[in-house]
Amino acid sequence: MPDLKTEPETAGKAGPLDLLPVPLQLDRSAPIPLHRQLAGQVRMAALSGALPPNAPLPGSRTLAAALGVTRGVVTLALEELIADGTLETRVGRGTWVAQGAAATPRERITRLPAWLTLPGPAPIDGPTTAPGLHFRPGVAGTRVLDRKAWQTAWSQAARMVPGADAPGGDYGDPAGEPELRSALAAFVGRARGLRTEAGRVVITPGSLGALGLIARLLPPGSRVLVENPGYRAARQVLLDAGHETVPVRVDGDGLVTGSLPPARLAVVTPSHQYPLGVRMSLPRRLVLLRWAQIHDALIVEDDYDGEFRYGAPPLPPLASLEGAADRVLYLGTLSKLLTPAVRTGFVVAPPAFVPALTRARALADGGHDRVTQAALTLLIAGGHLDRHVRRARRWHGEQQAALARTLAPLAPEARLGGIEAGLHACLHLPPNLPAGELAAELARRGVYVSTAESYTFAGEAPNALVLGYGGLTVAEVERGARQIVRVVRGD
Amino acid sequence: MPDLKTEPETAGKAGPLDLLPVPLQLDRSAPIPLHRQLAGQVRMAALSGALPPNAPLPGSRTLAAALGVTRGVVTLALEELIADGTLETRVGRGTWVAQGAAATPRERITRLPAWLTLPGPAPIDGPTTAPGLHFRPGVAGTRVLDRKAWQTAWSQAARMVPGADAPGGDYGDPAGEPELRSALAAFVGRARGLRTEAGRVVITPGSLGALGLIARLLPPGSRVLVENPGYRAARQVLLDAGHETVPVRVDGDGLVTGSLPPARLAVVTPSHQYPLGVRMSLPRRLVLLRWAQIHDALIVEDDYDGEFRYGAPPLPPLASLEGAADRVLYLGTLSKLLTPAVRTGFVVAPPAFVPALTRARALADGGHDRVTQAALTLLIAGGHLDRHVRRARRWHGEQQAALARTLAPLAPEARLGGIEAGLHACLHLPPNLPAGELAAELARRGVYVSTAESYTFAGEAPNALVLGYGGLTVAEVERGARQIVRVVRGD
Repeated sequence: MPDLKTEPETAGKAGPLDLLPVPLQLDRSAPIPLHRQLAGQVRMAALSGALPPNAPLPGSRTLAAALGVTRGVVTLALEELIADGTLETRVGRGTWVAQGAAATPRERITRLPAWLTLPGPAPIDGPTTAPGLHFRPGVAGTRVLDRKAWQTAWSQAARMVPGADAPGGDYGDPAGEPELRSALAAFVGRARGLRTEAGRVVITPGSLGALGLIARLLPPGSRVLVENPGYRAARQVLLDAGHETVPVRVDGDGLVTGSLPPARLAVVTPSHQYPLGVRMSLPRRLVLLRWAQIHDALIVEDDYDGEFRYGAPPLPPLASLEGAADRVLYLGTLSKLLTPAVRTGFVVAPPAFVPALTRARALADGGHDRVTQAALTLLIAGGHLDRHVRRARRWHGEQQAALARTLAPLAPEARLGGIEAGLHACLHLPPNLPAGELAAELARRGVYVSTAESYTFAGEAPNALVLGYGGLTVAEVERGARQIVRVVRGD
Repeated sequence: MPDLKTEPETAGKAGPLDLLPVPLQLDRSAPIPLHRQLAGQVRMAALSGALPPNAPLPGSRTLAAALGVTRGVVTLALEELIADGTLETRVGRGTWVAQGAAATPRERITRLPAWLTLPGPAPIDGPTTAPGLHFRPGVAGTRVLDRKAWQTAWSQAARMVPGADAPGGDYGDPAGEPELRSALAAFVGRARGLRTEAGRVVITPGSLGALGLIARLLPPGSRVLVENPGYRAARQVLLDAGHETVPVRVDGDGLVTGSLPPARLAVVTPSHQYPLGVRMSLPRRLVLLRWAQIHDALIVEDDYDGEFRYGAPPLPPLASLEGAADRVLYLGTLSKLLTPAVRTGFVVAPPAFVPALTRARALADGGHDRVTQAALTLLIAGGHLDRHVRRARRWHGEQQAALARTLAPLAPEARLGGIEAGLHACLHLPPNLPAGELAAELARRGVYVSTAESYTFAGEAPNALVLGYGGLTVAEVERGARQIVRVVRGD
């Protein structure tokens, strides 16, 4: 393709082209249209001043001949450059670089490459902005946080990290600091009856981050069973990783395990189904384990708020049941237990997975913030996490009781499910009261709830409202719940 | 397939099968062999106690008939269970559940599913363990860290987060806290001459994390130009994301930009090539930008230690050059500037990319640790980062000078390249001195260096040693460099 500086036919011929001090180079094999290439190069020259203001451009016919393109290509390019103010033109006076071209803000034209389609917003609830009462699931109250212990832990952590003996600012083990892994292994033993050891614990950036690491270990296009309704962001992570998600129904005993189709992985929330709130019964847990064995499959057990139980006896985690050792990856997170401000979770994995998870973490982001790890280790090893969980359980228990008693009069027509545990419950409505309409009416009254439908990605959604109470005070729960009662009754 | 509990033929017939209190269910369509399914189910029953110790098993012929499988299947299963101690057998006495079966450690058999192949170790240098002098690249000294400012920042951050007015423990904007984004935007303006605004800054978990987020925005199988020799982990991230990497040579002026093949993305380290240490010249930068325009491509500019310059005047970042606005994603990291203990980096992106990068971060891990963000904001906005960079530049300048002067006598046969900037340099050796052999001899003497070959993934590697000096004292640099001189000279 002709280069105006070197193209033989123009060498030795004086002419307007010699007034262009910049080489123009068009590539016919490139995916970008020729007129766009030409406009871009002239624009760049004008912006950088290589083509100074008022410098005249050759006529389109001349330029086209020199570049070996059609006049239409040049005309299109010039039109674009005139439209964005790089060039000016007057009939009979030709075309020249505009006076203010060099000052044209670089920001004016921000386009994406033609081949690039960027995805839409993530299916994750944004921060709550509307004033009012938000029954937002997945939110835990940090009001009972022991500020003094929190403060001390961070101060000490800052003294410890970077270590004085690691002047090279060592990156640390991508699987996590050994002390934190130990502390978490001990914690899940105490709190969840899951006996494990530090070597099986890998620190992750929250449970969504853990799922992302796991998703990357599966062969592309793996079939994954997911709860439906279920955690939308988790499904999106799996889809983004190139896998296929198969919806599985959920009923009052959790995942419906009769006739599960074959798959490589099942992702479940057995402690407190997200969003219906039900617990996966023990028989169902055993059936799922057997399914995994028969199909040589894996299970991800996402135990995001299993600590919050209100009277109901704890069920053993899937990961602690016999036969689970090779197949269940147990995800825990401190987001609900402590605070989501520290983006910290962990996976208790079968030993065979630990090197690969470590590698995945190393390549994802090099490992976990070490000051945070140090602070959390101090909090956990010092017993503060245990104390916090107990306080939080009492605090959330009061909210839970308030919700249950305020909504009790609606029974049996409207039934509250998933109330025995966790930080959200589900109000199941009769068919004559569509959840979407009730939610809209509640929003008009300043009470914000979600519907089970918004978590359902296939088939018919349960007709229910999802009520997260973890972030509300007892008074707020009562106030909001009373509105729900009124709206359900049509007041 | 027959279920021992419900299969019609056995109903009403008493027999040894009724002694098996657990349902056995074999699935011929499952990918796992029948004998393995059977062994696993019996094992699970024994471990859980459903089949108690000493419980007799039916003979293999009976079991095979009842299950509708061949006797060989049953025999294989029983052999496996005898081998691992779940069952015991005596000639003439049959087979029964072993006494200690229920106590069999769950850990004994940890296998991966047959369909799962896990990758090998990540191409990232592990923590340095051997005692001795490590000329490890990518390591910055934190010895000059202002401990008091560091301490204060974290203490204040712990007071601020979680906020008292965010009892719901709000997750925060996945793109990062506005104050940190602003502080970093101002910092790159001051420090690198890259004028930008907070809205274009997205906080990432280090620069490898940033590359991972960007890699996920590209269509699968995108072609990416990468420097060769180059940053291995970055290439692995791209490969793991399903893209194709095309090696491009590097010479004394950086990436060789003559005849670049078409691609969707180019990933470059123009401030200080990793690992050769050279700077990408300004003409080369302009050519790369033009290449991007012609091919409608993107550029990732990984500026991981551009702050450390020793006398050489700074070159403008690619991202600041005209024509870059739509196409260059500039990666910065605090790992070298401050400490890798905080896994924090950032990308300055064209505005069109910011929503997609935010979404990618949200799905990857929900966003960045907020206590860390608060502490870093205080450090940066308080001028401490600027001061730290100046101190670090002086500190590293002394190491750089020590390395240069101690190795100077080796010239011109062995030439030190990449010494004008950054935290590592490259000792280019004559062909008669293979780098690998020199490195091995140095290791025997307790001095650890890497070779350019280990960063080269295609074609012929430069014959050179890569010498990172950021983590060493001046005395250590001199001592190590003197050994290098001796080994090069054959002493």
